Amino acid sequence: MFHLQEYNEILIKRIQRLRSTRHRPDQFTVLVRQIPFCEEHGAHGCSVEHFFSKHHPHSYYSYQKLYTGKDLQDLLNQSRYMTRKIEDLREIEDLREKTKKQYREPLLLEAMREDIEDIALHKEKFQELYQKMHQLQGDNMLKDMELPVAFVTFKSRWGAALAAQSQQHSHPLRWITERAPEPRDVYWRNLAISYKIMPFYKIGVIFAAYLLTIFFTVPVTAVQGIARFEKLKKWFPPAMAIELIPGLSSVLTGYLPSVILNGFIYIVPFAMLGIAKLGGSISNSKVEIKSCNMVFYFLVGNVFFLSLISGSLLDEIGESVTHPRDFPSHLARAVSAQADFFMTYTLVGLSGFCLEALQAGMLLLDFIKSQTCGRSKENPYLYSLPYFRVIPLVSLSILIGMVYAVVAPLLLPFLVGYFFLGYAVYINQIQDVYETIYDTCGRYWPYIHHYIFVGLILMQITMIGLVGLKMKPAASVATFPLLFLTVIFNEYCKIRILPTFVRYSIEWNRTQWRMMKLMKKEVSLKLITRVQLVPTASLLFSLGTQCPRKSRF
Amino acid sequence: MFHLQEYNEILIKRIQRLRSTRHRPDQFTVLVRQIPFCEEHGAHGCSVEHFFSKHHPHSYYSYQKLYTGKDLQDLLNQSRYMTRKIEDLREIEDLREKTKKQYREPLLLEAMREDIEDIALHKEKFQELYQKMHQLQGDNMLKDMELPVAFVTFKSRWGAALAAQSQQHSHPLRWITERAPEPRDVYWRNLAISYKIMPFYKIGVIFAAYLLTIFFTVPVTAVQGIARFEKLKKWFPPAMAIELIPGLSSVLTGYLPSVILNGFIYIVPFAMLGIAKLGGSISNSKVEIKSCNMVFYFLVGNVFFLSLISGSLLDEIGESVTHPRDFPSHLARAVSAQADFFMTYTLVGLSGFCLEALQAGMLLLDFIKSQTCGRSKENPYLYSLPYFRVIPLVSLSILIGMVYAVVAPLLLPFLVGYFFLGYAVYINQIQDVYETIYDTCGRYWPYIHHYIFVGLILMQITMIGLVGLKMKPAASVATFPLLFLTVIFNEYCKIRILPTFVRYSIEWNRTQWRMMKLMKKEVSLKLITRVQLVPTASLLFSLGTQCPRKSRF
Repeated sequence: MFHLQEYNEILIKRIQRLRSTRHRPDQFTVLVRQIPFCEEHGAHGCSVEHFFSKHHPHSYYSYQKLYTGKDLQDLLNQSRYMTRKIEDLREIEDLREKTKKQYREPLLLEAMREDIEDIALHKEKFQELYQKMHQLQGDNMLKDMELPVAFVTFKSRWGAALAAQSQQHSHPLRWITERAPEPRDVYWRNLAISYKIMPFYKIGVIFAAYLLTIFFTVPVTAVQGIARFEKLKKWFPPAMAIELIPGLSSVLTGYLPSVILNGFIYIVPFAMLGIAKLGGSISNSKVEIKSCNMVFYFLVGNVFFLSLISGSLLDEIGESVTHPRDFPSHLARAVSAQADFFMTYTLVGLSGFCLEALQAGMLLLDFIKSQTCGRSKENPYLYSLPYFRVIPLVSLSILIGMVYAVVAPLLLPFLVGYFFLGYAVYINQIQDVYETIYDTCGRYWPYIHHYIFVGLILMQITMIGLVGLKMKPAASVATFPLLFLTVIFNEYCKIRILPTFVRYSIEWNRTQWRMMKLMKKEVSLKLITRVQLVPTASLLFSLGTQCPRKSRF
Repeated sequence: MFHLQEYNEILIKRIQRLRSTRHRPDQFTVLVRQIPFCEEHGAHGCSVEHFFSKHHPHSYYSYQKLYTGKDLQDLLNQSRYMTRKIEDLREIEDLREKTKKQYREPLLLEAMREDIEDIALHKEKFQELYQKMHQLQGDNMLKDMELPVAFVTFKSRWGAALAAQSQQHSHPLRWITERAPEPRDVYWRNLAISYKIMPFYKIGVIFAAYLLTIFFTVPVTAVQGIARFEKLKKWFPPAMAIELIPGLSSVLTGYLPSVILNGFIYIVPFAMLGIAKLGGSISNSKVEIKSCNMVFYFLVGNVFFLSLISGSLLDEIGESVTHPRDFPSHLARAVSAQADFFMTYTLVGLSGFCLEALQAGMLLLDFIKSQTCGRSKENPYLYSLPYFRVIPLVSLSILIGMVYAVVAPLLLPFLVGYFFLGYAVYINQIQDVYETIYDTCGRYWPYIHHYIFVGLILMQITMIGLVGLKMKPAASVATFPLLFLTVIFNEYCKIRILPTFVRYSIEWNRTQWRMMKLMKKEVSLKLITRVQLVPTASLLFSLGTQCPRKSRF
């Protein structure tokens, strides 16, 4: 169980990372939701001030309200459309100016005058929009747009940690506190969702992910119908034409289904990300972690188990449910039959790295966008490492590796090669290609740990089945304690290390207290400037205007 | 769903109760476990002082170490034995003194001299023991007996609430904080158990309770073999003699098995309490809550379900597992067949109230004790209301009532009578018979809520089955959303009200802050005196010497 030590090392790295970023404003800030409305002043803000200065007198520093940016966003979209139109008209005008010099036609002059009038009209409308936007950002209008959400800043990280971890009000659905995510990590749109209806969103997301996982088999089997070319010919006689071109039919029936399947699997993480975004998580990192989980279980279900189940799907599942004791031997038989498939799968994974290194998908997307929306004028945006796509795929490979280490060790060299290449590719990608959108601080590790645990459990169940198949029931029984020990070990990890990953301990937050006191003035100055950035950033983000970042190429 | 309002009302009552006892020292105190050893001073105490004065500078007040009382307890037991012996010898002497006046025999005088020497010897030994006990309580010895556990007192309830709710150290198995229970509620013996090995205790307890629940059927079926008198005669021919006495055989076969079964069920709560005590809970209330849960599930399993399953037990269970979809209709058929049994059960329950009112068990226990251990000299102790016995029984009656409200509403009047009588009996018992050992502050309510929820779910499953049996599958399907809604409602209760039952919110603890400031001096004086009581009480309790309370009769 080398695992615990590694877990601990990553924890230490996480703490070091958090320590090195200890002056970042998010470490002093708590996100407060469900702030009750102050009847007296007709706003949420003053009740925040009142509540925290009363209940956290030693550490409370200031607060920043949040506002809905929906109306503003509409106006901004309109104004953007307007500017584009004005630019287009100007271009046309310039063009006509040139032609005017050559031809001097009265009709052209007429058109030009109309264009100039058009431009003036649009400019007027733009001015109006500008006025409206300015009004919306006035104090009176802002009051109506107030959300019951605020960022509360504390004088010390210690105060923030205490406030974030405790229940504030005896009504547990009021004054929900939580460590604030990094400003660039906040998922602004979800902050507007009322905390009360959040559970419904969560149930909806789980339901949607569940449906996607279960019913993914439907398009897959439909597509794999292509493989049965004989049947296809019966329904759709024109398909006969394919036979006229030599070799095409074998490509179609042999290669196309697997390409389509892989294409589907490529799309799934993005679909899951889209689903997770609806779940009401307040930060991009949480959204990604959620979709990471969903994608992993999707892959385990639809790649690992589905490929194992040859023959009639439902019969097999039904048999496993009605005779759960036969599950290990079933699994072992299926696993050993499918070693070839997973070898191919691993090799296909290698081509995935090539795609990753070449950024083929992004290039294609960029090309399509530049052709259709005319976005090529703008700077291409940088993306962060798609954890939600990479982690589940790698975890699945680990799972396959662990299961096949028992059944067919010949698969292992391929996997080792896979991991080496993957390491080289991703080190390069992380250093040179992707931008860091937010600091993960090792937050993904507990999930990876969990995936490895799932793999370990599956491996041990397979082992029980395999040993049982080989007619050594005593050895099969002897493996049960191992399974039990694995579960106990996982529980131990949960108690021993997980809490520090999730919570922020008082002692750690207090360590720099002395230092803080010395540099208090400086830090609070910094804080003011930084915290002022947050609402601006919030408005900017909620408006969808991302700051232009350095170009990728 | 009148339930939510009731839940809320009980919550408000709980808060009021907590408020009315707001000067009690346990509201300012946090129990800290797994205190690391201070290498410098060779004790745990100084590291407590250091840690809390550093990390909770605004609210930390003082601390009280705890010591193991095992050696002391041994010595105290010895000295108790000694005093009893001396008393016995003195009584003999007094008796001989009287006879001496009458007879004046030389042999008697010899015996008397021996007795006097014996008394002197015992007195010397007693003096030695006294010296030893005194030494053990000296500072040097106490240092060795130190436990890594302390009660830490804060200046405000607010500070205690903050400290109790947050993770103190980045090593999550160090500095475990928890709201301290009332001094009289603390289960001192379990405080000596290291927090690290606590999970093993917990697993052990769950395992033991599980075994008891599952294998309870074995003695029951063995005992119910008596009912088959014909078989008994075959094995054990002398049993024929019973037939000679008219009527005895019918009493034996008809009444005895159910009496023995009820006797077993009467003993089970005490067995569960004994098991729960080994679970490492730090307070009596937690032990009782744990055994409450275990007894409830025991009763649901062994009284409700077992009585439903007529015929071969394992076949029936096996069928339910392999065809889970048939479970509702199975349940409905079994439930409607057993209405008579539960009517009898309810009526038997009424006799249970008579026993309760008469305190027959306690009288019997007292009688046996006075006959065997000669305890009659001491004051009979008062007991607290046996929640672990009463709550599961009443909850089971509620469950039966809910299930039969659908199947056989004729049972309901009996149950209503049962509850009315039960109310009258228990109100009387609580007011006049039992002593309050600790303030529950409504802590049992969430569990009762859970039991009612289990009943509701069972009722709805029965309903689905029953409607299905009556050949109305549409109505049966229409009941599913009800089941779903019940689960959702329970989840809502968990989010909405449960947290305040379990945690102590900052806002509430802060409300009396102002008042506190005014009376700070007075309170801190009180605190000192009270906190000093805690260790004394701890020693007293760990020594097993309970303060004599007012007699029951």
